[in-house]
Amino acid sequence: MKIAIAQQNYIAGDFEGNYQKIVQAVDTAFAQGADILLLAELTVCGYPARDFLDYRDFTHRSLQVVQRVADYAKNKLAVVIGTPTFNPVLDGKDLYNSACFLVDGNIEFTANKALLPTYDIFDEYRYFEPAKEFNVLEYKGYKIALTVCEDIWNIKNENPLYPMSPMDELVRQSPDLMLNLSASPFARGHARNRKEIVKANAIQYNVPVFYCNQYGAQTDIIFDGGSIVCSPYGKIYEELSYFEESVMTFDLESVKNYQGADQEQQEEDITLVHDALVLGIRDYFAKSGFKKAIAGLSGGVDSALVVALAAKALGPENIFSVLMPSQYSSDHSINDSLKLVENLGSPHAIMPIKDVFDAFEQTLVPHFEGLPPNVTEENLQSRIRAVYLMAFSNKFGYILLNTSNKSEAAVGYGTLYGDMCGAIGVIGDLYKTQVYELCRYINRDGEIIPENILTKAPSAELRPDQKDSDSLPDYDILDKILYQYIERCQSPQEIAAQGFDTALVQRVLKLVNNAEFKRFQTPPYLRVSPRAFGVGRRLPIVARYL
Amino acid sequence: MKIAIAQQNYIAGDFEGNYQKIVQAVDTAFAQGADILLLAELTVCGYPARDFLDYRDFTHRSLQVVQRVADYAKNKLAVVIGTPTFNPVLDGKDLYNSACFLVDGNIEFTANKALLPTYDIFDEYRYFEPAKEFNVLEYKGYKIALTVCEDIWNIKNENPLYPMSPMDELVRQSPDLMLNLSASPFARGHARNRKEIVKANAIQYNVPVFYCNQYGAQTDIIFDGGSIVCSPYGKIYEELSYFEESVMTFDLESVKNYQGADQEQQEEDITLVHDALVLGIRDYFAKSGFKKAIAGLSGGVDSALVVALAAKALGPENIFSVLMPSQYSSDHSINDSLKLVENLGSPHAIMPIKDVFDAFEQTLVPHFEGLPPNVTEENLQSRIRAVYLMAFSNKFGYILLNTSNKSEAAVGYGTLYGDMCGAIGVIGDLYKTQVYELCRYINRDGEIIPENILTKAPSAELRPDQKDSDSLPDYDILDKILYQYIERCQSPQEIAAQGFDTALVQRVLKLVNNAEFKRFQTPPYLRVSPRAFGVGRRLPIVARYL
Repeated sequence: MKIAIAQQNYIAGDFEGNYQKIVQAVDTAFAQGADILLLAELTVCGYPARDFLDYRDFTHRSLQVVQRVADYAKNKLAVVIGTPTFNPVLDGKDLYNSACFLVDGNIEFTANKALLPTYDIFDEYRYFEPAKEFNVLEYKGYKIALTVCEDIWNIKNENPLYPMSPMDELVRQSPDLMLNLSASPFARGHARNRKEIVKANAIQYNVPVFYCNQYGAQTDIIFDGGSIVCSPYGKIYEELSYFEESVMTFDLESVKNYQGADQEQQEEDITLVHDALVLGIRDYFAKSGFKKAIAGLSGGVDSALVVALAAKALGPENIFSVLMPSQYSSDHSINDSLKLVENLGSPHAIMPIKDVFDAFEQTLVPHFEGLPPNVTEENLQSRIRAVYLMAFSNKFGYILLNTSNKSEAAVGYGTLYGDMCGAIGVIGDLYKTQVYELCRYINRDGEIIPENILTKAPSAELRPDQKDSDSLPDYDILDKILYQYIERCQSPQEIAAQGFDTALVQRVLKLVNNAEFKRFQTPPYLRVSPRAFGVGRRLPIVARYL
Repeated sequence: MKIAIAQQNYIAGDFEGNYQKIVQAVDTAFAQGADILLLAELTVCGYPARDFLDYRDFTHRSLQVVQRVADYAKNKLAVVIGTPTFNPVLDGKDLYNSACFLVDGNIEFTANKALLPTYDIFDEYRYFEPAKEFNVLEYKGYKIALTVCEDIWNIKNENPLYPMSPMDELVRQSPDLMLNLSASPFARGHARNRKEIVKANAIQYNVPVFYCNQYGAQTDIIFDGGSIVCSPYGKIYEELSYFEESVMTFDLESVKNYQGADQEQQEEDITLVHDALVLGIRDYFAKSGFKKAIAGLSGGVDSALVVALAAKALGPENIFSVLMPSQYSSDHSINDSLKLVENLGSPHAIMPIKDVFDAFEQTLVPHFEGLPPNVTEENLQSRIRAVYLMAFSNKFGYILLNTSNKSEAAVGYGTLYGDMCGAIGVIGDLYKTQVYELCRYINRDGEIIPENILTKAPSAELRPDQKDSDSLPDYDILDKILYQYIERCQSPQEIAAQGFDTALVQRVLKLVNNAEFKRFQTPPYLRVSPRAFGVGRRLPIVARYL
């Protein structure tokens, strides 16, 4: 018995495009001699499809593609495919999140997902009824346990989210192997968790596990692939590549008997973060039908990193940088930026904002008479730059990249409708300290991001001699406090108890909560941590906690 | 036995402020001779508290307030209060959504919510474990069934969302009455559904029902109050007022025997929509600590309505209108706007955008050489206006009101970082045809919104002689198509089958899907329909459905 895994890059709702990908995988797996082709969770409609699942038409279309795949694979091999299906019972949610087993042109068997992740970016109980019945299927003399993603995660867990585990039920029917369809998104370090979970299942239930994960970015959610084949001894027989499509076929007996070393991918975490962001940019553009990006290049580290990543993702010729100096811009801001675009070989324009700023000032003078300059004039500069960038965007079809980092997004250190603009936030899930780490990684084989950008003190340059440190604590302290509050949901008392100044903690946490109204209007940020701003973190805007 | 209901306006996370409100209700109910005071769902922490519930500290603080209320009410009366509580069992979610019965300074009894709404704006399974055990409590010789909001909604339903109903379990223990703690938000027509549900429960389980609903706006979600007291005969003994705090005490025996006519509030739907929006504005400002609003007044119907509603909510002196004519603005735009602010008695400024527009144009000329004017120049005007409004906002502390309506938000007929700016969207859940309906309502006793604004053809006035109808179908057709797609989740085929042109339907639905990236960055819109844009409608940005 030979089992193929296909990790592929789908587009949510693109039924025809996804069908074409799937039949390619059928052909490849068939050519490789596979008996069964395992695909990912919700293969046909893409993941996450979100409220498209409220449209019955959407599920109908998905099921039509499933039937077309069944017809296509007939006389070739069996296919395990993910799709929403209708719940035939009136009570409960209308849909199941299903794995369908296709043989001889028919849906021979369907397993429904029981554990529905409803936390972070996941909303599955919004759409799906959890399975309550569990059966193995039989094929060519093998008993197969079909599970869907989260179904295998409620194991050896310190704080189990669910009161049951599907495999505890299925194991009573003595399965010979387990096939899992997943859509498990990338986060720094998460691939390790995934492998631990697969190993724990293989050992606990004494079955070889074939785990197929999606690959590709869906707006802000990035799937890294890294599908896993694991022996009952808990040894990884194969880990498929990250950030690539792949179809590979495995001999079941070989997997079953494998007791050797784990055969794993070897990339460092920072490499994966880099590759994830590059894929995030590339897929946002490719899947939306755009080619060219634009960004404002300030001379600071954030925009430099974004432009470098975009050059990698789209080609240096497809990232257009605009330098928009004001009277407060330092010479090095321009020079460093010019050095960067020269290193990259990417196009740029210089567009001083003085004339427009003066025109605004003159018309505002009668209204602002007697009032001192304040944050108004700082924001004005930032917003003028956004208007320029959007004018280029509109005229030439460039897509504006947002350059906010997670530290400034957290504390609201940015101008709404100014530097917080953009279609997609490239580094909005990287703390400032991680921004530097990634820049160093990009420069690992030679200077791409000019060294001076990495060594000078961060500044918004919106007033004379301004430094970030005028308003904010040092980033190495700030980022640690933010991490405890955002990722770990610690209280002010708990954070202070770790050795941070109590008043500082209170001030930082208040800044975070008060900036909720800004974050509500920011673009999606490419997610590379377990807790990113955006759909995975949902806070009230009008509230008074802390 | 006397039972008091207190519908009150809480702030999410404002534990001290909410405590003060609750003890006021204790005093009032005690003075009215009540034995039991019934409060709303998640009374102490406010609803929805969203991901604050991921902070254990948040629930700890809530439970501290519950204990303080118990202490305060000791020797006065029993209190039924809503709070998150910790799930003592390791398996499953960490919290319950609970109703606590406070007597003699103690939490005597706790009932947990079983049916957890996870659809539309609701995310309860994100946080809470559903109850699996059901018991009545006994107090002063009465058996009381405690239920929380959704618990009573799975009754006589054509498409039940859940496979069970808590009252089916509780009724086996022969309760004498049912108390329900709710946080049921306003939507046009929803109060009628609520009364039907309460009546159906009262009749089916043969108990008097006391139903306490929250009142007040939580950012975009507006709670209307309208708490209900219903006899076992399904007759409404009292419906508390809408959009007001209220504490009222009822004699259980009188309620039990009531067979008279339903005693209901009599407001028309349009009145309630008006009052909901006024409350939405008022609470956004009051709860955020702001007083003054700003809006751009274009001469069109949308901004006129927003300014009129803001004048009602905040006082005419607290809404500052800015008129920002361009070369394409018609004379009537200025005159109609001036007439409006005169009618309202509210302040305004006139700020032509020509100088700044020219400054932008001159600096862009070298970059745009040879390219014809297009949407770039239209958006530029809109964005210049936004920069002006935000400059006033920053300088004077005005909060910018967004004036997008649901029709244009749906099809993306608006400029991101331009007229789509604002802290809170006042009419983003009103289709254009409903905008006119509400204007007529406001003018019911005499002209407030100038008649000419209501009769002229809608235009963005961003190019010569532009009309909305150049780009969009007539609003009475557009709005019907949008309603079928957005509220009713109908497919293009289903909508066309209702008599709309197939190509037009396809075009409109594509516009809706393609505008997802814009809506992602818009402010929260005050929700007055069952399906508003915002947290209640979650679509992928990069996708290809339809």
